[in-house]
Amino acid sequence: MKVSHLFTKTLKNAPADEVAKNAQLLIRAGYVYKEMAGVYAYLPLGLKVLENIKQIVREEMNGINSNELVMTSLQRKDVWEKTTRWSDEVVDIWFKTKLKDETELGLGWSHEEPIVEMMKNYVHSYRDLPVSLYQFQTKLRNELRAKSGIMRGREFVMKDMYSFHATKEDLDAYYDQAAEAYKRVYERLGIGDDTYMTFASGGAFTKFSHEFQTICEAGEDVIYLHRGKNIAINEEVIDDAVAELGINRDELEQVKTAEVGNIFNFGTQKTDEMDLYYTDKEGKQHSLYIGSYGIGVTRVMGVIAEKMSDEKGLVWPEAIAPYKVYLVSIGKVSDEAEVLYEKLQTAGLTVLYDDRDERPGAKFADADLMGLPHRVTISERLIQDGKVEYTSRASGETTVLTLDELLAKIA
Amino acid sequence: MKVSHLFTKTLKNAPADEVAKNAQLLIRAGYVYKEMAGVYAYLPLGLKVLENIKQIVREEMNGINSNELVMTSLQRKDVWEKTTRWSDEVVDIWFKTKLKDETELGLGWSHEEPIVEMMKNYVHSYRDLPVSLYQFQTKLRNELRAKSGIMRGREFVMKDMYSFHATKEDLDAYYDQAAEAYKRVYERLGIGDDTYMTFASGGAFTKFSHEFQTICEAGEDVIYLHRGKNIAINEEVIDDAVAELGINRDELEQVKTAEVGNIFNFGTQKTDEMDLYYTDKEGKQHSLYIGSYGIGVTRVMGVIAEKMSDEKGLVWPEAIAPYKVYLVSIGKVSDEAEVLYEKLQTAGLTVLYDDRDERPGAKFADADLMGLPHRVTISERLIQDGKVEYTSRASGETTVLTLDELLAKIA
Repeated sequence: MKVSHLFTKTLKNAPADEVAKNAQLLIRAGYVYKEMAGVYAYLPLGLKVLENIKQIVREEMNGINSNELVMTSLQRKDVWEKTTRWSDEVVDIWFKTKLKDETELGLGWSHEEPIVEMMKNYVHSYRDLPVSLYQFQTKLRNELRAKSGIMRGREFVMKDMYSFHATKEDLDAYYDQAAEAYKRVYERLGIGDDTYMTFASGGAFTKFSHEFQTICEAGEDVIYLHRGKNIAINEEVIDDAVAELGINRDELEQVKTAEVGNIFNFGTQKTDEMDLYYTDKEGKQHSLYIGSYGIGVTRVMGVIAEKMSDEKGLVWPEAIAPYKVYLVSIGKVSDEAEVLYEKLQTAGLTVLYDDRDERPGAKFADADLMGLPHRVTISERLIQDGKVEYTSRASGETTVLTLDELLAKIA
Repeated sequence: MKVSHLFTKTLKNAPADEVAKNAQLLIRAGYVYKEMAGVYAYLPLGLKVLENIKQIVREEMNGINSNELVMTSLQRKDVWEKTTRWSDEVVDIWFKTKLKDETELGLGWSHEEPIVEMMKNYVHSYRDLPVSLYQFQTKLRNELRAKSGIMRGREFVMKDMYSFHATKEDLDAYYDQAAEAYKRVYERLGIGDDTYMTFASGGAFTKFSHEFQTICEAGEDVIYLHRGKNIAINEEVIDDAVAELGINRDELEQVKTAEVGNIFNFGTQKTDEMDLYYTDKEGKQHSLYIGSYGIGVTRVMGVIAEKMSDEKGLVWPEAIAPYKVYLVSIGKVSDEAEVLYEKLQTAGLTVLYDDRDERPGAKFADADLMGLPHRVTISERLIQDGKVEYTSRASGETTVLTLDELLAKIA
């Protein structure tokens, strides 16, 4: 892609009403556009990051035999009434609307109820189990406040997965598999070292659920951390967890975090509320065991923007950067730059080529703001020496290399 | 994918309230699930078809230098008031909702207004033009009736594209390019021969817009067709068009069709309503010329299901089938079937392997209902002969082949 073909422009300033660092940077760099508080459009660069994150999540969910589908945004009242969660007193973030005939509809903020309802069509016997399903869905939540940029949206993309099992043991085993898959996701996204599987509030069936919490100053959560023992506890369950785990509270470090995922063991609660059953070999009816597993895809993107950025702009991890290389031409070298642009792409690299007639300083500033991992510069002087200049966005390290050396380094 | 891992089951009957053939077949074959009238979830097989269609559309839109982004579902009242289209009297298919503070929001049924509004941030000068942008967006439309399955949904996927130009000539040229790209899309989807670029109602700027209409008994439109001259006219503009084109109405054939796309030349109407301008080299301010281009992605899938099906089930065109091959094992040949399953995939084919312990007749019936292009069967008898049985879903032709002959035929 050439910068001259990219309709977005970098901006000196974010909108005055945007207080979150992640959104300020993403807006200034042309990744997102703010439609209203908590509601952002994803522009070409931002959509690429989003799709890269989704693809990593997709591969890991497929890897634990989950099947991708997509449920609906419009929601039926009768389905949600079965668990009392239609009520605005029980769930205070519903957006609701109406059909022409005044039938009330909800807009999906979660999909546990509709997916359990749907499964009544497909799960009848022990032979139909286990099943795991997931989707990437645009969720709508009527948040009272939305000041955290894409870290807490009124409209946002979530990966939600649901698994259905005949026995507690089968659910427990899958729950552990899902936890491992989640760890691989955060590892691949480049935030593995700062992300902790954290004890959090459970439900009717289990004392604790688990959240995946990433250390982040802009996060809304507080956890207690024992780095040595790799134990993390959400403050909401600190008393219970300390007692349960038999650890000394003084050894724990308090840190601010953002929740980037959660996994929840519903046991048989949902199945009992919603009348989803299976029959065993003898034809006897049983409750199903259900697990629920979420990753806030756009939130993860926001957390990464918060954590992996500096005073100059964004610093994308290689795995999710919209392009790997930012190619800068300086002076009258457009023929040579075109050739290099092709060669880099032929080597399998994705390239954003800044072909504009702009000052080098302006191009470098945009490169830093957009945050692609590798900057490659060519100029008349460099061409005479048969070299290019390479700069790592993360380390700032700059070296002069031959094309072969460059490709050995980054391709 | 193995059928035993697919949580969906084929159903003998569609829900009693489902009157549309496309949805009946898609529900029975496990491609979609009906959440409510006009609102369908896309199950793993259906999602694959949808993604295959999107990928074809994406490639063709990228091919005319359009950039993909994704706008938001939640819509601002003030943006739509600029063109009077916030009013429920002007647009009678709005779903609306409210923030906690009672601020009214709309749910996106189209994105012309918000994208024009957004472009005020990015288009200032003649140097910023032309720009073309598109998205795949889940649109919500409060249709009074929704009885056409996925051909007219209250929630559906649309590709909408918008182009912005400095001059009428530039828009006209791009409009023609878009028309050609649309033709390639329908050709690749396998409905090219039955799809006509059709004169339809224009607007303030042009006498006619153009629709792409596919011959389909279940369609809601009527067009007049001159097959020889490749002229098609929507009945809504038949008088004007016959006069304009100087053709004899008696030569036209009346056919029922479904609208699978439309392209619309707004001229400077939107820019004038919404105050989007650019400045030329001399710093003088001008109106922009805007084109709008839609393809109903889920509708196209419904039209194909209607047209390409028979009494046994669906008959997917190769380009969008969820898998290319339906592999059937008969009898105790699971080891050999596994080997064949691997070999077919190694040859680059996508395979749905029916590994269930079911009667051959049940497997064949499911294969026919699901409609994958190529059925490959192995049994003890065939294995002894070193052969497989091949059946084309479209022609019904069955032949016995060696693996090499099979691969030469379908890989």
